[in-house]
Amino acid sequence: MPDQVLDDISHRRYNPLTGSWLLVSPHRTKRPWQGQQEAPSKNVLPAYDPKCYLCPGNKRAQGDSNPQYKDTFVFVNDYSAVKEQQQDYHPEPTDKNDIASLLLQAQPVTGRCYVLTFSPKHDVTLADMTVSEILPVVQTWTRIYGSHLSATHPLRPAAEATLARIPTNPNGEVEPPSTNQLRYMQIFENKGAAMGCSNPHPHCQVWTTSTMPEEPGKEFTQMARYRAENGRHLLADYVKLEMEKKERIVWQNDGFLVVCPWWAVWPFEVIIIAKRHVRALVDLTDEERVQFAEAVQEVTRRYDNLFETSFPYSSGIHQAPLDCTEDEAETSWFHMHFYPPLLRSATVRKFLVGYELMAEPQRDITPEQAAARLKDCGGELYRRLLN
Amino acid sequence: MPDQVLDDISHRRYNPLTGSWLLVSPHRTKRPWQGQQEAPSKNVLPAYDPKCYLCPGNKRAQGDSNPQYKDTFVFVNDYSAVKEQQQDYHPEPTDKNDIASLLLQAQPVTGRCYVLTFSPKHDVTLADMTVSEILPVVQTWTRIYGSHLSATHPLRPAAEATLARIPTNPNGEVEPPSTNQLRYMQIFENKGAAMGCSNPHPHCQVWTTSTMPEEPGKEFTQMARYRAENGRHLLADYVKLEMEKKERIVWQNDGFLVVCPWWAVWPFEVIIIAKRHVRALVDLTDEERVQFAEAVQEVTRRYDNLFETSFPYSSGIHQAPLDCTEDEAETSWFHMHFYPPLLRSATVRKFLVGYELMAEPQRDITPEQAAARLKDCGGELYRRLLN
Ligand SMILES: [Zn+2]
Ligand SMILES: [Zn+2]
Repeated sequence: MPDQVLDDISHRRYNPLTGSWLLVSPHRTKRPWQGQQEAPSKNVLPAYDPKCYLCPGNKRAQGDSNPQYKDTFVFVNDYSAVKEQQQDYHPEPTDKNDIASLLLQAQPVTGRCYVLTFSPKHDVTLADMTVSEILPVVQTWTRIYGSHLSATHPLRPAAEATLARIPTNPNGEVEPPSTNQLRYMQIFENKGAAMGCSNPHPHCQVWTTSTMPEEPGKEFTQMARYRAENGRHLLADYVKLEMEKKERIVWQNDGFLVVCPWWAVWPFEVIIIAKRHVRALVDLTDEERVQFAEAVQEVTRRYDNLFETSFPYSSGIHQAPLDCTEDEAETSWFHMHFYPPLLRSATVRKFLVGYELMAEPQRDITPEQAAARLKDCGGELYRRLLN
Repeated sequence: MPDQVLDDISHRRYNPLTGSWLLVSPHRTKRPWQGQQEAPSKNVLPAYDPKCYLCPGNKRAQGDSNPQYKDTFVFVNDYSAVKEQQQDYHPEPTDKNDIASLLLQAQPVTGRCYVLTFSPKHDVTLADMTVSEILPVVQTWTRIYGSHLSATHPLRPAAEATLARIPTNPNGEVEPPSTNQLRYMQIFENKGAAMGCSNPHPHCQVWTTSTMPEEPGKEFTQMARYRAENGRHLLADYVKLEMEKKERIVWQNDGFLVVCPWWAVWPFEVIIIAKRHVRALVDLTDEERVQFAEAVQEVTRRYDNLFETSFPYSSGIHQAPLDCTEDEAETSWFHMHFYPPLLRSATVRKFLVGYELMAEPQRDITPEQAAARLKDCGGELYRRLLN
């Protein structure tokens, strides 16, 4: 335990990646629990669903047909959150004498959103897939990231060398928009109805924008500050510390550490962190791509095993911006967040509402308790043991 | 419209209260909509539920019985998120040479959490209640806030004068904990199953803590900065601006302005802002308490009318800390946030997941469109017109 007393008292913990605090109430886990016990959930989906807009061969909303793809398939989202081309908008500069310029600030955003399927099979999830089936997903993430880097990006040479080593995929290649250089690429997955995901076909989204989004922007600022103040990388120090403390580790291999972070907000939140200084996907060696696929497999399988259900979550990769300076690339440290809402069973979830929205995130079980539970959930995927 | 072009292009808007940005995708509202139409929902709850732990006369989890209260009733939460008394914990000061002191920071939090019922009736909500029925709720909020102020608080004289004018309520009075002075009081309501609220009996929660929570803390920093830079209050300027622009106003009376703020994240998010410099509940005059009750009534009734359903939301009051300097009290500006998740109907909600968690909040309909809809939703509560 970090300090035995923290396992019993209400306290706040600091998230050095975002510079914010959260409230931890470990004594609350002693509340009586009358929740139901769920039966282990089996997979009842078909391997192919003629109505799914992601299954091979099917038609999508705007009339395009999906190819008979083999592993991954990438296409531009039919209803992107950002537009590639749009009318110009030049906000007025802020001016102390013009209240509107201070309080009604807007800035234009352009970009493009992709959908990326993980498998042609409608009825699998990352937890069901083997490491060699997840590897093509990591390869496609790497190719799509590498292909969107700016012409002068410090990671260009690394990207070219890496992309030359990854097998091409006729259904996984995309050209970046030619209009203007994009600033950031957010790869994220929303899994499960509890996370508002309406299609169980395994897939993620890739949103690229001309602006740096808030969350990676905050992390970037904090990592840059830490580096300036301490002369070391925040996540390098954190990996070292967690490997020494051994209190929040869920799993690890040579390339990656999986922990329930000290500052976890979601009950079973985890972070996959590169052990060495990997700035972005294109920095990964052939071996590390396999190790990363393995880490993703371990996390998602343990999640499903925890409550014997298909575990909902949002996950996302943070890495170097698509357009940045040498110093900004150097500050970046590749990692992946998993934010799952389930708390006590397949149906009892944590809501981030009320106090969390108005005041401060709050959690009951400690990250140390969560890590211990997830550590014990290895082994065969529970669904394979049902009949 | 703010600038006509913003109604069509993807852009970001700045929240000056928190210093963060959000993504707005107005073109996306042109997506085809195949959602179901809901029938107007009637109230099917009993006026008294023998199993409800908030109904008058009933027993609560830890054995206490509720009194036969008349309007509001306040009691200490049986499972508070913070403890009043606990073991001491003195964190090590941060030290550049000790990574753990930088990356595993914690601080103790003490405090007390209350539950506050709005009515003895199990089957009403604020939307069903009249202004004169909501007034005792505002009075109880005022008393509980006033009674927890520190001995040297700059609002003490105001609080004493105000509390002397508010009728006492044998079931609405509480003494603050005698152990140590608390820093902040967060009054918030979680309404509806969509917000994880398990009990429909109308009530809110009041959490007091020895620490300043993140959200009001961020707002406080931003308001202080604005004041230092511009010599005026941020929310004074904002009220003035919105009253001039008339683009996001939902409703107003002499004391309060209700707008869908420029920076709204939730589809029908609104903020109630005091028009004059009110630092906290105890600053409100007798007339303003009625006006505030009226504003709360207008917001909640319009919400219910919008989709003809009992509208879920989280709401919360931000005001001066319980313990603060003259200057901090002066910086505070009383306001109330409403964050409702519904998007298109009683069952189609906005999820803040995926990109929102990993990158940046995102919305489709603009605050101007939301305000126009809510402005048109006045009139009798729809339920009263059903038979
Ligand atoms: Zn991150
Ligand atoms: Zn506020």
